[in-house]
Amino acid sequence: VGTGNSETVKAYLDTLASTEQSLALDRLSDEERHAVLTTLVPEDAADLVALLPDVQAIELIEDLTPGEAAAIIDELPSNLKADLIGELEDDDAAAILNVMEPQAAADCLRLSEYEDDEAGGLMVTEMLKYPVTWTGAQVIADLGDNADLYRDYDVQYAYLVDDQERLIGVLRMRDLLLSKRGTPIIENMIANPLSVEDKSKIGELIDLFDRHHFFGVPVVTSTDGKLIGVVHRAAVEEARAEQHDSDFLKTQGIVGGEEIRSMPLIVRARRRLAWLSVNIVLNMLAASVIAVYQDTLSSVIALAVFLPIISDMSGCSGNQAVAVSLRELSMGLVRESEWMRVWLKEVSVGMINGLALGVLIAGVSFVWKGNVYLGLVVGLALCLNTMIAVSIGGLVPLVLKRFKVDPAIAAGPILTTVTDMCGFFLVLSIASSMLDKLQ
Amino acid sequence: VGTGNSETVKAYLDTLASTEQSLALDRLSDEERHAVLTTLVPEDAADLVALLPDVQAIELIEDLTPGEAAAIIDELPSNLKADLIGELEDDDAAAILNVMEPQAAADCLRLSEYEDDEAGGLMVTEMLKYPVTWTGAQVIADLGDNADLYRDYDVQYAYLVDDQERLIGVLRMRDLLLSKRGTPIIENMIANPLSVEDKSKIGELIDLFDRHHFFGVPVVTSTDGKLIGVVHRAAVEEARAEQHDSDFLKTQGIVGGEEIRSMPLIVRARRRLAWLSVNIVLNMLAASVIAVYQDTLSSVIALAVFLPIISDMSGCSGNQAVAVSLRELSMGLVRESEWMRVWLKEVSVGMINGLALGVLIAGVSFVWKGNVYLGLVVGLALCLNTMIAVSIGGLVPLVLKRFKVDPAIAAGPILTTVTDMCGFFLVLSIASSMLDKLQ
Repeated sequence: VGTGNSETVKAYLDTLASTEQSLALDRLSDEERHAVLTTLVPEDAADLVALLPDVQAIELIEDLTPGEAAAIIDELPSNLKADLIGELEDDDAAAILNVMEPQAAADCLRLSEYEDDEAGGLMVTEMLKYPVTWTGAQVIADLGDNADLYRDYDVQYAYLVDDQERLIGVLRMRDLLLSKRGTPIIENMIANPLSVEDKSKIGELIDLFDRHHFFGVPVVTSTDGKLIGVVHRAAVEEARAEQHDSDFLKTQGIVGGEEIRSMPLIVRARRRLAWLSVNIVLNMLAASVIAVYQDTLSSVIALAVFLPIISDMSGCSGNQAVAVSLRELSMGLVRESEWMRVWLKEVSVGMINGLALGVLIAGVSFVWKGNVYLGLVVGLALCLNTMIAVSIGGLVPLVLKRFKVDPAIAAGPILTTVTDMCGFFLVLSIASSMLDKLQ
Repeated sequence: VGTGNSETVKAYLDTLASTEQSLALDRLSDEERHAVLTTLVPEDAADLVALLPDVQAIELIEDLTPGEAAAIIDELPSNLKADLIGELEDDDAAAILNVMEPQAAADCLRLSEYEDDEAGGLMVTEMLKYPVTWTGAQVIADLGDNADLYRDYDVQYAYLVDDQERLIGVLRMRDLLLSKRGTPIIENMIANPLSVEDKSKIGELIDLFDRHHFFGVPVVTSTDGKLIGVVHRAAVEEARAEQHDSDFLKTQGIVGGEEIRSMPLIVRARRRLAWLSVNIVLNMLAASVIAVYQDTLSSVIALAVFLPIISDMSGCSGNQAVAVSLRELSMGLVRESEWMRVWLKEVSVGMINGLALGVLIAGVSFVWKGNVYLGLVVGLALCLNTMIAVSIGGLVPLVLKRFKVDPAIAAGPILTTVTDMCGFFLVLSIASSMLDKLQ
């Protein structure tokens, strides 16, 4: 890389699959990555940047001079362009926008203000847009003149606007093809087409694409109804996949929903520790229940063997319920208000599984110590605590969502703290009540 | 519903968003769902079935008579059709295929043999396909004649085949538009277009769509190179989202990666229990370490308070590493052979976080009991065990993948068993070695 020129680097990258390209780039040092990007012509560098996860792309761009960065960003599709500018540090973004063409910079800045989960953040501005007063012949002439520009466009539909840039109709390429060339396009268009506002949320878009066979839907501003872009079905599906991805990492305690091992050590450690340190405090709180029952525990030391089992198993059962609730919420199969239904569904599973697990652990403890009452204590505690765990696990995501707390990151810690406390309390208080039979 | 006719049911459903439609259907009893589907005309019923999660759609279809089911399935897009037939019980599928048109049934059966993650399973067969010998005028005439049929097609591209149905070229609608109508289409086509084989895996498709701005790619058979369908970018992104979804449920212990609360109680309980029962056995194995050190524990009963904390916190740290590894594997950012890199990256985070958590818990235990050595025991054990947990958490998914075991479902239980054993062993063996200082 160090000595190569644009052509050889490009030729080498072309031999790799896209996942291998990101892998290869991931493994280079910062200097080498910088060298690769500046060696490639901006267009090829942009293709490479487009393949990378966002965090990685941003790190790369921040290492470039504003001029180099602007040249590459200029070649990206409009939605990626705006994403990157939006996520860069303000200073860096300003420096890059400064060296871009004023018009392009203004567009970029405007787009970067949309959230990633809004129509405005998901749309591309690359689309066919014509005055509604044109004829078919004019459109065809334009398509011929700008064939190069339109190379990567979706040209199945052209969007027709009035002199205020407001969306009036949609012209299907097929209808244009079937009509006489001199016909005004207004005669072939679909009037009053469906559109979404720029601030529409992704849920609305998923819904719309579920109900219609569209490949894309036009986006208009909520303020003045101007046509500003198109959201493609694939962009919505991709955003949904990324959302699932980030939710998954959050449930496992990755704050921010994003970690790649090439990120700086200190950032990775800090984000993970943020979640762990809350957890350890909650854990100590739960374990304080054990401290209260120290005397019971020292008289029946065998109980200490079962405490971590009960804590762990209740966590497992509860997390199954959390996962199903999170998923049903994201699929729209459950509403925040339906806690009664969720509870009934969960507690019935909890009863069956709690009974099965309780009998199993009671049997094992009886075989180990030969004391029926010990079996009764741990079996009963695990059975009851399994029902408690699935109830809490099922309901906590609904409650958190209602109070606008992200259930993906918060449900797990709350669940384990409460079930640990209940589990320890059940084992040790039942044991205390029949202490004479256990010794 | 019971008394309503097709029109009123349809009119009511139309007032609901698609997520509300699936929600409403989810809440009905089996009889009511059956009534809704049979009341609607097959076309509307098919639209409804298309919105539902697969498990739900299958249950519904199985409740219908083969005739009713065939009428609805017939109206579904080809990929959904094949999915459903493929996932029905063999008897039910055969009964439905029997009442379908022989040609449609044969097509359906052929498609249902592809896996969900293969090009053949993701493609639609609805596409524009013309003999390469045609002229532009013939294509345009066909588009006009079959406008209704092609309503939901992607008509941006037409695929051109020879008399053996082999893919020869792609005709862009735009180029057709710009050419004279009598021109043979062979003169305007893109020759040697990219295509994928029917058995191509989703990873290959993701790669292809990452590198090209295509909206769809044609699919040919691996045996004789016949053109059989088109995979759209949106279908690939959707499959990716579903994959993430199912992996998420698996990591939380939902065997099979699918559960919806309207599924039968016994199915839900059994699937969850399958995973829980493995876990409880592993848990008892881990807890047996505590049993070995019972004497140490009874002399320093305070240790019993810390055992669940160490077990839980190590599980948390390890799961963070599991999540990052699973995600890097699915994004292609890490290879199965790169265990050394993963280990170095993980153990350095583990060292920082283990030190932080260890110091914290040592401090708390000193404040509680006033014994420096107790703090030393639990702090050291937690610090070391955090490093062990992240190492195992980072590496286990790589190892499982290498041995073709699904890391999503198996990594968690393996991780917690090993870290629990190590954690209990560390606390209790360090404590045993300085027992006189702890009492």
